[in-house]
Amino acid sequence: MVDAFDWGLLEPAGADAAVVADDRILHAMIELERAHLVAWGGLLGVETTSTLDADLLDREALLRESRQAGVPVVGLAQALRQQGGTLVHQGMTSQDVLDTALMVVSRDALVGARTRLGEAGRRFAALVREHRPTPFAVRTLMQEAETTTLGAVLSGWLDAITSALEVLDAVEFPLQLGGAVGDGEAFARLSGDPDAVAKLRRRIAAAVGLTDPGRAWHTDRSPVLAVTRAAASVCTAGGRIGRDLGLLARDEVVTPLHGGGSSAMPHKKNPVDAVLLVANGLRVSGPLAVVQTASLSYDARPAGEWHAEWQAWRECLRLGAESAALLAHAAEDLVVHIRRAHVDPAKPPRATATVDAALARFERAVEGGDR
Amino acid sequence: MVDAFDWGLLEPAGADAAVVADDRILHAMIELERAHLVAWGGLLGVETTSTLDADLLDREALLRESRQAGVPVVGLAQALRQQGGTLVHQGMTSQDVLDTALMVVSRDALVGARTRLGEAGRRFAALVREHRPTPFAVRTLMQEAETTTLGAVLSGWLDAITSALEVLDAVEFPLQLGGAVGDGEAFARLSGDPDAVAKLRRRIAAAVGLTDPGRAWHTDRSPVLAVTRAAASVCTAGGRIGRDLGLLARDEVVTPLHGGGSSAMPHKKNPVDAVLLVANGLRVSGPLAVVQTASLSYDARPAGEWHAEWQAWRECLRLGAESAALLAHAAEDLVVHIRRAHVDPAKPPRATATVDAALARFERAVEGGDR
Amino acid sequence: MVDAFDWGLLEPAGADAAVVADDRILHAMIELERAHLVAWGGLLGVETTSTLDADLLDREALLRESRQAGVPVVGLAQALRQQGGTLVHQGMTSQDVLDTALMVVSRDALVGARTRLGEAGRRFAALVREHRPTPFAVRTLMQEAETTTLGAVLSGWLDAITSALEVLDAVEFPLQLGGAVGDGEAFARLSGDPDAVAKLRRRIAAAVGLTDPGRAWHTDRSPVLAVTRAAASVCTAGGRIGRDLGLLARDEVVTPLHGGGSSAMPHKKNPVDAVLLVANGLRVSGPLAVVQTASLSYDARPAGEWHAEWQAWRECLRLGAESAALLAHAAEDLVVHIRRAHVDPAKPPRATATVDAALARFERAVEGGDR
Amino acid sequence: MVDAFDWGLLEPAGADAAVVADDRILHAMIELERAHLVAWGGLLGVETTSTLDADLLDREALLRESRQAGVPVVGLAQALRQQGGTLVHQGMTSQDVLDTALMVVSRDALVGARTRLGEAGRRFAALVREHRPTPFAVRTLMQEAETTTLGAVLSGWLDAITSALEVLDAVEFPLQLGGAVGDGEAFARLSGDPDAVAKLRRRIAAAVGLTDPGRAWHTDRSPVLAVTRAAASVCTAGGRIGRDLGLLARDEVVTPLHGGGSSAMPHKKNPVDAVLLVANGLRVSGPLAVVQTASLSYDARPAGEWHAEWQAWRECLRLGAESAALLAHAAEDLVVHIRRAHVDPAKPPRATATVDAALARFERAVEGGDR
Repeated sequence: MVDAFDWGLLEPAGADAAVVADDRILHAMIELERAHLVAWGGLLGVETTSTLDADLLDREALLRESRQAGVPVVGLAQALRQQGGTLVHQGMTSQDVLDTALMVVSRDALVGARTRLGEAGRRFAALVREHRPTPFAVRTLMQEAETTTLGAVLSGWLDAITSALEVLDAVEFPLQLGGAVGDGEAFARLSGDPDAVAKLRRRIAAAVGLTDPGRAWHTDRSPVLAVTRAAASVCTAGGRIGRDLGLLARDEVVTPLHGGGSSAMPHKKNPVDAVLLVANGLRVSGPLAVVQTASLSYDARPAGEWHAEWQAWRECLRLGAESAALLAHAAEDLVVHIRRAHVDPAKPPRATATVDAALARFERAVEGGDR
Repeated sequence: MVDAFDWGLLEPAGADAAVVADDRILHAMIELERAHLVAWGGLLGVETTSTLDADLLDREALLRESRQAGVPVVGLAQALRQQGGTLVHQGMTSQDVLDTALMVVSRDALVGARTRLGEAGRRFAALVREHRPTPFAVRTLMQEAETTTLGAVLSGWLDAITSALEVLDAVEFPLQLGGAVGDGEAFARLSGDPDAVAKLRRRIAAAVGLTDPGRAWHTDRSPVLAVTRAAASVCTAGGRIGRDLGLLARDEVVTPLHGGGSSAMPHKKNPVDAVLLVANGLRVSGPLAVVQTASLSYDARPAGEWHAEWQAWRECLRLGAESAALLAHAAEDLVVHIRRAHVDPAKPPRATATVDAALARFERAVEGGDR
Repeated sequence: MVDAFDWGLLEPAGADAAVVADDRILHAMIELERAHLVAWGGLLGVETTSTLDADLLDREALLRESRQAGVPVVGLAQALRQQGGTLVHQGMTSQDVLDTALMVVSRDALVGARTRLGEAGRRFAALVREHRPTPFAVRTLMQEAETTTLGAVLSGWLDAITSALEVLDAVEFPLQLGGAVGDGEAFARLSGDPDAVAKLRRRIAAAVGLTDPGRAWHTDRSPVLAVTRAAASVCTAGGRIGRDLGLLARDEVVTPLHGGGSSAMPHKKNPVDAVLLVANGLRVSGPLAVVQTASLSYDARPAGEWHAEWQAWRECLRLGAESAALLAHAAEDLVVHIRRAHVDPAKPPRATATVDAALARFERAVEGGDR
Repeated sequence: MVDAFDWGLLEPAGADAAVVADDRILHAMIELERAHLVAWGGLLGVETTSTLDADLLDREALLRESRQAGVPVVGLAQALRQQGGTLVHQGMTSQDVLDTALMVVSRDALVGARTRLGEAGRRFAALVREHRPTPFAVRTLMQEAETTTLGAVLSGWLDAITSALEVLDAVEFPLQLGGAVGDGEAFARLSGDPDAVAKLRRRIAAAVGLTDPGRAWHTDRSPVLAVTRAAASVCTAGGRIGRDLGLLARDEVVTPLHGGGSSAMPHKKNPVDAVLLVANGLRVSGPLAVVQTASLSYDARPAGEWHAEWQAWRECLRLGAESAALLAHAAEDLVVHIRRAHVDPAKPPRATATVDAALARFERAVEGGDR
């Protein structure tokens, strides 16, 4: 085994992002190689084995070769060829493998995040209904502004979740397959079938559970932008609700049922979920900006921009997966304290339309995605 | 007149972003106040004037009051009330005015960008067709890799533009209307009509040409994220093509028809469009990251996050508008030099599928948006 | 006159950053051309005029030529040559002029910021002394933690300012002079003096009030990183204190003497300085990240990276200048309300060492820079 | 053992950053606890053990408790107390432990980076001397500009390294010690010695090899900004040189002695060091921006900002450590091909002053730090 760089010491919510850990990415890379081998053998009319085995890999050697080639795929393809023969990886390029693997874990991370967001939203929807008439003096610019209802305030949390759901549901997870320079011609040359790459894309996409984009996107990073932006939108929802949770805890309106302790002050009940949600909300801007900058591709593969993307792309997913899980946990762990608010008895606050709109919008979004 | 902070000295492509200049935003703010006044008067059954006049405003006073209130709307509303009476701005809050105005100029900027992208794409599509069979030794990691066609390489530019078109076409430009704390209840209280805010949203949205979101999004910044991300996607397309234009100019494959000169070396033909496209591609990560960070809203209006958004939001639009125009200009100004490539006569490069897919995808996208 | 893109509509604190407005940068460009003309004429033993006049410039033409050349210097140099003859700009390149001009306004902005920080610090130091014994229940993670003194809390503000002062005092503002490709050889060739560029740097640096770096830094952007990071450190100090000001206003511990009003709720006293300080603290990450990314230079002048820097560099200065002024204003406008804190009479909080250290550190820093 | 999230799969140069891996941070945390225990026992006149043992820790439990508390220190302190008794961690807070541990690994990473930069610089200095007279047609904006010497071009690489050295040498690595709310009063209360915290800082700083800042910097993040900016400056030097290496490889002026292969094109010699240097140069903007945003602290510990810093801080170090090692490797692996340049025999390019200045500046910087 190789040494771990990051086993979670600095990542309190890390357990909820195991789906994008290095091991999962490595498995997705092998899954793609396996699907390619089967489809490619099928196209060539050659018997192939599909038993490529991650456990047989020498990870130390893999890392040495990754340093040598600047990409973890060259050594992997060589090692897998020893298991599965010369058809392994044939016609593909490193970027096909790594981009596809990152798309596979992107799908896993964001589908999981969607489920967690739905759970959080359902709990917040119940709170919205419960506190529909509860008067609440809401603040603007830190100062008490006007009295509305707590239901209206909590509707804002539901809206944040619904918006994240909508962004998630618009994302596609396409296969990457283009060969050395993106035109897929090696498959045609080797097989004699001019439609080889199109057929392979269809079969491999079905096998690994991604969409078939009908093209290679080696230098058009819009699918990566879409996926990472969606992950960032989950962090936005989490961070926006986390800020409110923290401030309402400050004002003693809400408290976490099981707050975190402190090494110096064991009596404290810290709003840990809120704190980590805010942290993730602040953190995601960093890797998202890297993905944005790295989207300035060129040639058939740029000298650094693509490499800059890998960890940043994965980091967005990690933060999104964590934030969705933190939201689901926070929604379960929330105690609301009704608080005095100055209400004119002749004019009780209502905000009915706000609440109704938020509930309906959430139901539409959460149902839509469940189909 | 007040002094200009930025009249374009540091912004060579600035003329193409006049649509999001301060004057345009101010006019959009007044347009919203006017539409509100008419709709609100209509709801109350009161005669109103729609003659709010930007030219009557004292801009120095406006800026003084903006420093005092921390937002340019308080002073504006006071000044407009002197023109249009007490119903002006009634029930609204600063955020309604500023968010709506920024959405109006967002629409103008991105609709304009769409047109420019279509123009660039049409020109690139012609080049793709022209160079469908031209052999071209494309590079990966700066090194010559395999021979494909120049048509396939240029298809990559078309793909970048198509992806930006698709992102643009998915964006909505919603009206902002929520009143002091976002629940729109002031309109109901003042008019006695519980549906007042819904009716106003419908009428005002139609008047200013935005969509009616059926809610306020004061603290759910997903519409802002969507708009600015779309602008950034335009910059991605521009930067990706700009990088290629610059590198192909280095390799003497393309040159600009009218390159820019130099203060020290007047003989040079600099690929100015390419340079500015790359610059904008690098620049947009900055304001986009600010919008992302600022999306962590709280309370009914946060103490800084909303204010951090204004210039960053507008900067994304500026860069997107410029990049689209630069692309359209670069596409017209491009001279391609056929260049020797080592081709095996028995295996001429084809890349037909890549080219066909890119052309079809572009046609679908550019038609789709023209409907 | 050309149209203004930004005359401050979206920049409530903009008046405090006039020192980095386009006009000031243009004047600094001309100042450099003038200093070069005098020094260059001196070196050549030729009589020169120093009367280059900004008012004679046709700004519309300047912008047109800036679009054509991708840089605002080519057209300027031509126009000034008509005023001052062929020696104007001779041997220099666009980057010499623009980098130097931005360094001149950097110096002006940061020297001004230093003064404002000193004013804010002196006022906070007085508050620290006044509240040295005042018990105060400070919070961690939004929750009340332990009781310390208000003096200790305010010492934290002083520390933030002192740290910014230390960063400012470590910054240098070097002249840029290297000619077309950075080696300054044109000066040697034209004058026959092999030391021409070194002599010119010395004289011109003295004339415009910058340091002589003894080299060109066309592609080593470390001076730009240093200047913009220092401006960001001012924003950090401002944002950190602004967050506290806002939260303490929420807790009714401090209030601004003259708070800002609201368009919907005129009774409110918003902590406007705090809000804008937080906004600037959030905003500065954007342009600072752009400057960081753009620091990856190459060749003798990169195709986009340098251009990406201009507005980002200036934006950092703008935000730093504003933040320092906002801090100075906030420090004057601050009312502190003593608030009950649970104190064990046997163990009154002291925090003497914290307060003493902060006061001494501030005095050292503020004196050091005044020398 | 717990599962690794990141064991280097996506980090080809990761082996050079092992110094900031989770294990090293955990050991630094324990080192601080040990130093505190000895110093605190000494102050109290109590015998203590210094045998806190990382190998006895249950990492799964540590991670579970980290999720519960939102910080990895609460569980660690409890576990260590079982080994070393109740004086362990007494008077400290989580932030003391984590900030100090990150400073310890910051020092290790940046001291190591300094050594690597010196090695790279010495090799580049030899190349500069070798190619002092070699004519070279350098480019601006991708186009050939004027002929200078290759020595002058390579001087630019030396300048980039020297600037990074200067930034590194200005950084301090201070101990963090302040207790629950930063005023260190718990130590005074528990020991009866009003100077307890000052004495502890002195002793512990000496024990762990950090400087004694004479204060706590819990909410003044300037030391973190300084450290991460220095790491980013190393990435700037690397990225700037990496861009040149890649482009010069494109132009066939330089090639790597041992270039990396490709999974699709084994004949290629990819400039892997250059590619990874550029990638790191692009990547570092992300975490640096997060550290900048997170510097807006408040209260005695903010609810998210501090937590957002940990991984971003460490990521800057990782990238800086890698970039320095990549530079040292690239400098050893570099083959320069003399290339024709059009030279007027009457005016051979010289650029002597540029070369001399760069060599002298490097010598000063590299010697200065070796003292």
